Amino acid sequence: MNSIGKILTLTTFGESHGPAMGGVLDGMPAGVAIDLDELQRFVDRRRTGQAVGASSRNEQDRVELLSGLLQGQTLGTPIGFIVRNSDAHSQDYDKLSDCYRPNHADFTWQSKYGIRDHRGGGRASARETVARVVAGGIAMHALNKLGVTITSRIVQVGHVTDEDKFDGAILEAASEGDTLGGIIECVADGVPVGLGEPVFGKLQAQLAAAMMSIPSVHGFEYGDGFDMATKRGSEAMDVFEKREDGTIGTATNHSGGIQGGISNGEDIVMRIAFKPVPTLMREMLCVDHDGNPVAVHPHGRHDACVLPRALSIVEAMAALVILDNYLIRKTNEL
Amino acid sequence: MNSIGKILTLTTFGESHGPAMGGVLDGMPAGVAIDLDELQRFVDRRRTGQAVGASSRNEQDRVELLSGLLQGQTLGTPIGFIVRNSDAHSQDYDKLSDCYRPNHADFTWQSKYGIRDHRGGGRASARETVARVVAGGIAMHALNKLGVTITSRIVQVGHVTDEDKFDGAILEAASEGDTLGGIIECVADGVPVGLGEPVFGKLQAQLAAAMMSIPSVHGFEYGDGFDMATKRGSEAMDVFEKREDGTIGTATNHSGGIQGGISNGEDIVMRIAFKPVPTLMREMLCVDHDGNPVAVHPHGRHDACVLPRALSIVEAMAALVILDNYLIRKTNEL
Amino acid sequence: MNSIGKILTLTTFGESHGPAMGGVLDGMPAGVAIDLDELQRFVDRRRTGQAVGASSRNEQDRVELLSGLLQGQTLGTPIGFIVRNSDAHSQDYDKLSDCYRPNHADFTWQSKYGIRDHRGGGRASARETVARVVAGGIAMHALNKLGVTITSRIVQVGHVTDEDKFDGAILEAASEGDTLGGIIECVADGVPVGLGEPVFGKLQAQLAAAMMSIPSVHGFEYGDGFDMATKRGSEAMDVFEKREDGTIGTATNHSGGIQGGISNGEDIVMRIAFKPVPTLMREMLCVDHDGNPVAVHPHGRHDACVLPRALSIVEAMAALVILDNYLIRKTNEL
Amino acid sequence: MNSIGKILTLTTFGESHGPAMGGVLDGMPAGVAIDLDELQRFVDRRRTGQAVGASSRNEQDRVELLSGLLQGQTLGTPIGFIVRNSDAHSQDYDKLSDCYRPNHADFTWQSKYGIRDHRGGGRASARETVARVVAGGIAMHALNKLGVTITSRIVQVGHVTDEDKFDGAILEAASEGDTLGGIIECVADGVPVGLGEPVFGKLQAQLAAAMMSIPSVHGFEYGDGFDMATKRGSEAMDVFEKREDGTIGTATNHSGGIQGGISNGEDIVMRIAFKPVPTLMREMLCVDHDGNPVAVHPHGRHDACVLPRALSIVEAMAALVILDNYLIRKTNEL
Repeated sequence: MNSIGKILTLTTFGESHGPAMGGVLDGMPAGVAIDLDELQRFVDRRRTGQAVGASSRNEQDRVELLSGLLQGQTLGTPIGFIVRNSDAHSQDYDKLSDCYRPNHADFTWQSKYGIRDHRGGGRASARETVARVVAGGIAMHALNKLGVTITSRIVQVGHVTDEDKFDGAILEAASEGDTLGGIIECVADGVPVGLGEPVFGKLQAQLAAAMMSIPSVHGFEYGDGFDMATKRGSEAMDVFEKREDGTIGTATNHSGGIQGGISNGEDIVMRIAFKPVPTLMREMLCVDHDGNPVAVHPHGRHDACVLPRALSIVEAMAALVILDNYLIRKTNEL
Repeated sequence: MNSIGKILTLTTFGESHGPAMGGVLDGMPAGVAIDLDELQRFVDRRRTGQAVGASSRNEQDRVELLSGLLQGQTLGTPIGFIVRNSDAHSQDYDKLSDCYRPNHADFTWQSKYGIRDHRGGGRASARETVARVVAGGIAMHALNKLGVTITSRIVQVGHVTDEDKFDGAILEAASEGDTLGGIIECVADGVPVGLGEPVFGKLQAQLAAAMMSIPSVHGFEYGDGFDMATKRGSEAMDVFEKREDGTIGTATNHSGGIQGGISNGEDIVMRIAFKPVPTLMREMLCVDHDGNPVAVHPHGRHDACVLPRALSIVEAMAALVILDNYLIRKTNEL
Repeated sequence: MNSIGKILTLTTFGESHGPAMGGVLDGMPAGVAIDLDELQRFVDRRRTGQAVGASSRNEQDRVELLSGLLQGQTLGTPIGFIVRNSDAHSQDYDKLSDCYRPNHADFTWQSKYGIRDHRGGGRASARETVARVVAGGIAMHALNKLGVTITSRIVQVGHVTDEDKFDGAILEAASEGDTLGGIIECVADGVPVGLGEPVFGKLQAQLAAAMMSIPSVHGFEYGDGFDMATKRGSEAMDVFEKREDGTIGTATNHSGGIQGGISNGEDIVMRIAFKPVPTLMREMLCVDHDGNPVAVHPHGRHDACVLPRALSIVEAMAALVILDNYLIRKTNEL
Repeated sequence: MNSIGKILTLTTFGESHGPAMGGVLDGMPAGVAIDLDELQRFVDRRRTGQAVGASSRNEQDRVELLSGLLQGQTLGTPIGFIVRNSDAHSQDYDKLSDCYRPNHADFTWQSKYGIRDHRGGGRASARETVARVVAGGIAMHALNKLGVTITSRIVQVGHVTDEDKFDGAILEAASEGDTLGGIIECVADGVPVGLGEPVFGKLQAQLAAAMMSIPSVHGFEYGDGFDMATKRGSEAMDVFEKREDGTIGTATNHSGGIQGGISNGEDIVMRIAFKPVPTLMREMLCVDHDGNPVAVHPHGRHDACVLPRALSIVEAMAALVILDNYLIRKTNEL
C-alpha cells in the first residue's frame, strides 16, 4: 500500500540506497502553474544537513519531473517524478545485513517479506519521504491558488518547549551519542467549510492516517487533542458567532477547525508526536537472525533529532490530504 | 466515504431517527462460525442505558443478519445487516432544525450538503457506530479463531485516572448538567508478526484512521505515544531478546507492538482521547442559520460521558483493522 | 468485491433464498428529489413473470429505503435499502446441494469458498441484480435532472434480429425445454463531453466492467465494436463538423460516443451479449462433488430467456457508471 | 485514474514526447526472481518497427528498474521503473496543436482538461502502453512460477482470418495510405480454479476493463462470446467430467474458463477487437478549435495496423489481472 488519496493519489517507490526515490501524483487538476524553482526549494527544506545535529549525508535531491506538465502547467495527467540517490555509502551497512537493530524496521520487514534491503534501512528509511515532499510541494501550488496556507513549527524537543533552546537540547543529546524526539504543530489556514467525508473519511481520520504514516510518528491529535479528555463539556465549547462579513465562525477553536468530521472554516490545528531517532551514535544491542546478541556501532550518518527536517514532510502530507478533500467536496452536489 | 478496509471492507448507513442503521461487511473469509448470541451480546455492550450517567434512550439494538451466512457459517459473500431504530422521539429535535449547536456537526453538515437530517444528529449521531460494532463483533469471531484477543478499558475520565472514581466523576458532572471526556486504552494480544502495509498502510496509520473516525475522538497514540516526544533514544529502546520458544521478542514495549509500520508480535497498545459530550443538560448558546444567537435547552437524551459505551466501538474498529491486515498479509508471498 | 464505483459506489449483498437482497449507494449528491413510485416502477420492470417465457417466481420486490433521504430528498449520506425475498421455495433445491450443474456457478463457488448456498444459486443467482436496479433507478433520477437519458432494447434473440419475432423464438425454445441468449443494445443520450478517466478508467473500460459483471454476459462492445475489426481506417472515420449551435460534433458515430476513453457528446452506444439460460427445463447432466455423473431434472422456476428482464439491469449499470463519471469529472479542474 | 488492480496495482505515467514513460508496480510478492534480460525481451516485442506496416519510430525502450529489487529478487516493495523517450520528433506535430483529428483523443482531452499535450498524442498515445508491458512482464515471472502461461495471437486482420495473409493485407492497406483493425485472441493456460471476485469483481469483468483500457480496443468477449447469443442452452453446455487425475473438468469450453465469475480450471479464452489505426497516411479532414475544417497531412510515423505490437500489451494486461486475482484468492479463507 504505497498509495494515498482518493481523487488526488500519490504512489511512491524507492529504497534508500537504490538508484532513485520517486512517485506518481495522479488526479492533479489541469491548468495549475507549477514553479519549478519554488518546488525545488520546498524539497530542499527537507534535505539532510540543514539542521543542527543532522546527519552529514548530503543528497542533492534534485527533482526530475517526467510527465504531467506542459510549459509549466499541469495537464491533468499523472505527474511522474524521481529524485536520484546520489550519495549512498552502502558498504557502511554491510554488517547490518544479518542484524536486527532495536526500534528499527529490520526485524518486522524481514519477518514479513522474508527478504529486505538492509542498506540504510531500504524502503523503511525516512529517505522515502522525499517523494512525499515533492508531491506535497506540487499540491501546495494548487492550495495557494485557493487561498490555503499550511505552516508548521516545532513546539517541543524532548522536555524543552522553549523555541530558543531546541538547538541546545539537540546538540547536548548528540554530544552524548543520544537522540531526541518532539512534537510538531501544523496549521492549515484558509481551508473552506465543508472538507471531509464522514463517516470513515472524516477529515481528522484522513489527516491522522497521513501523519501516522510518517516514519517515527507515535501520536496525532487535533484541536485540544488529548487535553480534551480533561475538559468538561462547558469548557470545551466553541460558541458560534456572526462575523462582520456575515459568515458564521467560532469564538474559540478547541475543535481545531473540524466538527463532525468536516472543516468548519477555522484554522485546522494538529500536533504530531515523534519518537527519538532509534540509531544512537554509540554501541547498540542488536540480535542476529537467530536471536543471539550482537553489539553494533553504527557507521552511517544519522540525525540526532528529525524534527527540523520533518516540518516539510508534515506540511506535505497536510497539503495532499486537504487538496484531495477539496476536490472530493466538488462531488457533494450535482 | 462510508466504507473502511481494503480486503475486509465495512460499509455503513443510517440516520439516528431513520428506519434503521445497517451495514455490509464484505470480504469476510468463508467457513467462520458466527455465534449469534455472542454477537448480540457484543452489540449490547454498546447500548444506551448501561452505564452511569448514560442517556435513557433504550434501543433494543437487535441485530438482523440478512445475508452471508448459511447454518451459522460465513459463506465468503457479503454480510448485510440492519438494526432497527425502534425508539426515536424525533419531535424532541424539531426546534433544532434551524439551529447550529456548538461542538456539533450541525453547521458543517448543513454547509457541506445544503441539507441535513437534524433529528438526533442524523448520520452525525454516535448511533451510527452500532453498525461498526456489529461488524467488529463478526470480525472478532475470526480473530478469536486466530488467537487474537482485543480488550479495552477506560484509563482516564476528566482528570481522574483512578478506576474506582470514574462513576463518581461522571455523576458529579452530570448533576451539574455538564459532561466529561476521557481516554480509552485498547490492547490487541496475540497479533502475529507481519501485519501492516508500509508506507501508507502502516498498521498505526490504519488504526489511527479507524479510531479517529469514531465520533468525539480527538487524539490517537500507540506505544509510548506523546510521551515518546520527551524520551531520549536510549530510554525508548526496545531491546530484542531470544524467548524460550526460540522466537525473537522485545524486553520492553515502548513501540506498542509496531515497528516500521508492521506488527512485531508484542501487544499492540493504543490510547484514544475523547472530547466531552457536546450536549449539556442545560441551556446552550446556539445560532440560527443566519448566525443570530438562540438559546436552546436540549430535551433529547444524552450521555454525560461516552466512554463506557465507547469501549466496544474501539474494540470493533481494532478488530476490523487487524483482521483486514491479517488477510492482506497473505498476499505478501506467492 | 461487492462494490462498484469510485465516488458513487454501490455495495450489494444478498443470497437468492436468504431473508433479503440489498445494497448501499454511497456518494449520491445531496438535494436530489427521488420519486419513490417512479423508483418502484423501474424496479418492477426487472421483476420475474413479466416477460414471455419467464419463470413464474413472483416476488413483490418492494423497495425499502432505510436511510439517506429526508422528505424525498437525498441527504448526501449513504442510501441503504433492502428488498425482501418473499417467495422462496428453498426445498426445490435440496437435491442440488451435492451437485454441480453445467454452466452454473456451483462448481467454481464451492471450489473457491469451500461452502456455498445452493438454494436458488445463492449469491450467484441473477436475483442479485435487483439491488443494482434499485441503485440504478436512484442514479437515473440525478441523470434525468442533468438531461441524460438511458434506454435499451433487445436487438437479437438467438438467431432472430426481427423484433416482432422475439416472443415466438423464446416460446418455441421454451416449448422444447430449451433456452435462448441474445444481444441488448443500450444508448445513453445527452451525456456531456468529458466523462471518462484515462488511462485505466476510460469510459468504455468502466462500462465494460459494469456490464460484464451482470450474470450471463459474455461480450461487450461499443460503437462499431467487433465490426470495427473489419473496417479500414478510412471507413471508420467520424469526421468532425460544426453544429448550428456552434458546438463541434461528429457526422457519424462509429466511435459510439467515446474517443480516447472520454465521452465526445454523441450518443454512447454499446451492445451486450448474453448466453442462453443454463438451466434447461429438461434433464441435465450434472456431477456430484466427487465428479460422478448425476442426472438432474430442475424443479425451480427459470426463464427461457433473460433478455426482457435484463433491460433494466443494463440501464441501471449504465446509469451508475455515467453518474459516477459525471461526479468525478468535476474534480478535473480546480 | 492511472492505476489498475487491487492488491497488485499498476500506476503509470508519461506523455509520448515527454522525458519518459514509467510506472509503479505495487503489491508484487517478495522473493520472486526477475530475469532482466527476459523482461527486456518481453518489452522489445511491443517495440515500434518490428512488424510489417509498422511506423519507423525506433525507440530503444530500455527498461530502467529504480526500486523494489535486490540482487534480482523482488523485495515486496513497489517496483518503480521508467523507459526514456529517446526518439521524439515533436516538431512533426506542431501544426496539430490547434487541430482535432477524427477518431483521435484530441477533441475530448482538450474539452475535458482545457489543455493537452498535442505532441504525438501526449498521454493518449499508444506509447503509454510500454509501461503496461514492463509491469506485465514482471507479473509474468510470478505466473510462470505458478504454472500459468499466457499467449496471444492475431486471429483476424480486416476481413482476413487466414494467418498467412495478414502481412499481405496490412501492406496492401498501407500502400493506399489506409489502415486496418483486427482481433486478437488471448489464452491463459494453467489458471487454478477459484480466481475472480463476484459480484462486481468477476474475472471477466476485470479482464474486460483491462482490455478495454488499451487504446483502439472496441470489443471484448470470452468463451463463445457474441456467438453465445445465437446458441440454445443445450448447445452451449459445458458438461462436467471426471479427469484421470480425479479432478473435475469440462468436456467443452464454451464458457471460456470462467463460470459464475470465477475461473474453473479450463483455459481462459478471450478475444479483443481493435479498430483500425485512426491516422491515415493521406490527407485527413480535421477541424480547428472553433470547428472550422482543416485538411491535415500527417508527418509523424504511424503503424498501418497495431495488432502485431498489441500482442504483448494484451498479454501484459491479462498477466496483471490474473496475478492480482491469484493474490486476492488467498484472502478467501482464514
